[in-house]
Amino acid sequence: MTATTLKNVRPMGAEAIDLHIVEGRFASAAPEGEAEVVDCGGRILVPGFVEAHTHLDKSLLGLPWYRNEVGPRLIDKIDNERQVKVSLGLDPQVQSERHAILAMSYGCTHIRSHVDVDTHHGLAGIEGVMATREKLTGLIDIEIVAFPQSGMMRRPGTAELMDEALSLGADLVGGIDPCGMEHDPKGHLDTVFALAEKHGKPVDIHLHERDALGWFSMEEIIDRTVALGMQGNVSISHAFCLGALDRAYVAGLQEKLAENRIHILTTAPASAPVPLVKELKAYGILTGAGCDGIRDTWGPYGNSDMLEKAMHIGMRNNLRRDDEVELALEICTKGGAAVLGLKDYGLGFGCRADCVLVEGETLAEAVALHAPRKLVLKGGRVITRDGKCVIEAP
Amino acid sequence: MTATTLKNVRPMGAEAIDLHIVEGRFASAAPEGEAEVVDCGGRILVPGFVEAHTHLDKSLLGLPWYRNEVGPRLIDKIDNERQVKVSLGLDPQVQSERHAILAMSYGCTHIRSHVDVDTHHGLAGIEGVMATREKLTGLIDIEIVAFPQSGMMRRPGTAELMDEALSLGADLVGGIDPCGMEHDPKGHLDTVFALAEKHGKPVDIHLHERDALGWFSMEEIIDRTVALGMQGNVSISHAFCLGALDRAYVAGLQEKLAENRIHILTTAPASAPVPLVKELKAYGILTGAGCDGIRDTWGPYGNSDMLEKAMHIGMRNNLRRDDEVELALEICTKGGAAVLGLKDYGLGFGCRADCVLVEGETLAEAVALHAPRKLVLKGGRVITRDGKCVIEAP
Repeated sequence: MTATTLKNVRPMGAEAIDLHIVEGRFASAAPEGEAEVVDCGGRILVPGFVEAHTHLDKSLLGLPWYRNEVGPRLIDKIDNERQVKVSLGLDPQVQSERHAILAMSYGCTHIRSHVDVDTHHGLAGIEGVMATREKLTGLIDIEIVAFPQSGMMRRPGTAELMDEALSLGADLVGGIDPCGMEHDPKGHLDTVFALAEKHGKPVDIHLHERDALGWFSMEEIIDRTVALGMQGNVSISHAFCLGALDRAYVAGLQEKLAENRIHILTTAPASAPVPLVKELKAYGILTGAGCDGIRDTWGPYGNSDMLEKAMHIGMRNNLRRDDEVELALEICTKGGAAVLGLKDYGLGFGCRADCVLVEGETLAEAVALHAPRKLVLKGGRVITRDGKCVIEAP
Repeated sequence: MTATTLKNVRPMGAEAIDLHIVEGRFASAAPEGEAEVVDCGGRILVPGFVEAHTHLDKSLLGLPWYRNEVGPRLIDKIDNERQVKVSLGLDPQVQSERHAILAMSYGCTHIRSHVDVDTHHGLAGIEGVMATREKLTGLIDIEIVAFPQSGMMRRPGTAELMDEALSLGADLVGGIDPCGMEHDPKGHLDTVFALAEKHGKPVDIHLHERDALGWFSMEEIIDRTVALGMQGNVSISHAFCLGALDRAYVAGLQEKLAENRIHILTTAPASAPVPLVKELKAYGILTGAGCDGIRDTWGPYGNSDMLEKAMHIGMRNNLRRDDEVELALEICTKGGAAVLGLKDYGLGFGCRADCVLVEGETLAEAVALHAPRKLVLKGGRVITRDGKCVIEAP
């Protein structure tokens, strides 16, 4: 029996206790026999971070600096990326492993990654990230969204590749701006939902469209969710249109999202309208978050540190009070876990011991500091110590 | 003669050279006699960061965590702060020293700090920050703005205290939302500019007012700048109204700002409209930046790391290309220096050796990483090594 006792630890900032882990799960009683004892020095323990929206296949981590001279439009970035993947000889397996290990060093224990599927690169991304998932089994859980980054309507053959990706092992069907990118909302969404129905898999759609355009697409998504009885199995990522000025219209949309248990994944960018997380909470809409792509051809920033992302969510949503900052942290932990439908997640007895020791006197301070993580456990096993993942990146 | 050679260093990311420092200034020739040699390992050197908008007197650094339960309005935060300063027994000297030393650890070599002047605390803030400035002479340069945080029109006696603060040694006259906060734009701005005229000191006004309200106040500021011939001696901090949707109106304002050499200091908050830094650059408006208050009763975030602030400016302004990210860095270095009117700033021969070794292959990577600073020099003297300031905070 493997057993560990976390001594002098403060779950969610509460009073210090000793916490027992037996066979990878939190246990109510001290383990029988020998147990490894870890002195936590009175630090706060939170459940593992859930990076619920990123792109493991496309970071440029470990490569020489990529000088970004890309044009300003969405399509500039998409077209550039397809080319650069070739010119740099990007290996999705290696890149996703580097990215996942960086995320692990910050305490991520679960990742939902969109992975490009297109007629240029076929299933190379899916296969690469699946190989990384296999390689890191037990160290981090990775969900794969088959993601038609370059569009399905615009590029014939992509839908068939999406179908293959889902047969191969992708967990969700992705989608992207049905109007702004695809110019065929009916065609795109019918294809996305047909794939979901065929494979019995959930949906997670990128929706960058703003204002009325985004509302239209969102309503089309809601209609299909209802028609197929997919309540609880649809997420919308970004959802910038929920940050629109017309709050009365947005309120109506939020009611429908809540009613149909459609989840929101926010990346909380500083330069775009964003869903207001306090409103989502009030409506009972499950909300997770992600760092989006990090250090890729889209932009230079990011690190998959979901504790820093909690700060960015806080700054973007003007969250200043401690209870508000705690909401930002909740989104990056159990909010994401709820969207992903994780079982046995949390710090309760019986839950899997996926957890992170953070620095700070309170949860809000932990967010504000987002100092290197002292310790990260996955299923009771140490995966990061003093900010360094125990696994070497390739 | 004190002399140092920075070996194998890349000024602004250029090719590696040896850079000489003699008597605290960059020199074209190797120093005569003995010189201390510092191996910079090929790292990039940038000039010292200029924290051009912060509040040294009010951070809660070093104190137990302050649980923020403050109301949502500006006036809630202002009124709460005046009370909490008393209940916590905040010592502006100690707090400003802690804050300045933290900033130094991140490579700040110059700070412009607003310091509260009000009828509740009188000149305690000014005296405290002046004492810190004295104590840290040679280690960091601190400019003090006498700042009527609680208003002058609303609180009789404040203008007289402002006058005293300027006689005592404050370097600039501050101001705050003439309409939204003071409810008397004429009274407030006439007082601010009268103080500036009397003391022959520049002006730096907080302007959070949005849209047309902010435009009105800004035009009132411009009119007074022209009337008093104060071109080049007026800064506007925050200037959220320049982030308004009506770009045609903003364009007219920006022309007037440029024409009258009125500078902008942005804090680039993620949750408010902000001046667009690329536009300011195009108009030739000098632009600096600041972290604003850090870890205070207003909110839990911040650290006076101007390299991280460059990233936040980049994220807020959607700067992704390398040349754009370099603009964000420029704002946090020579942009701020220009606004403050610093002489002999930069990495050129004859300039004061205020400089920072940063991590990363390029300037954009340095911003994206904002890793702990290897070395910070002020006038050729090491003030920070491996992210740790050589001065202990009290």
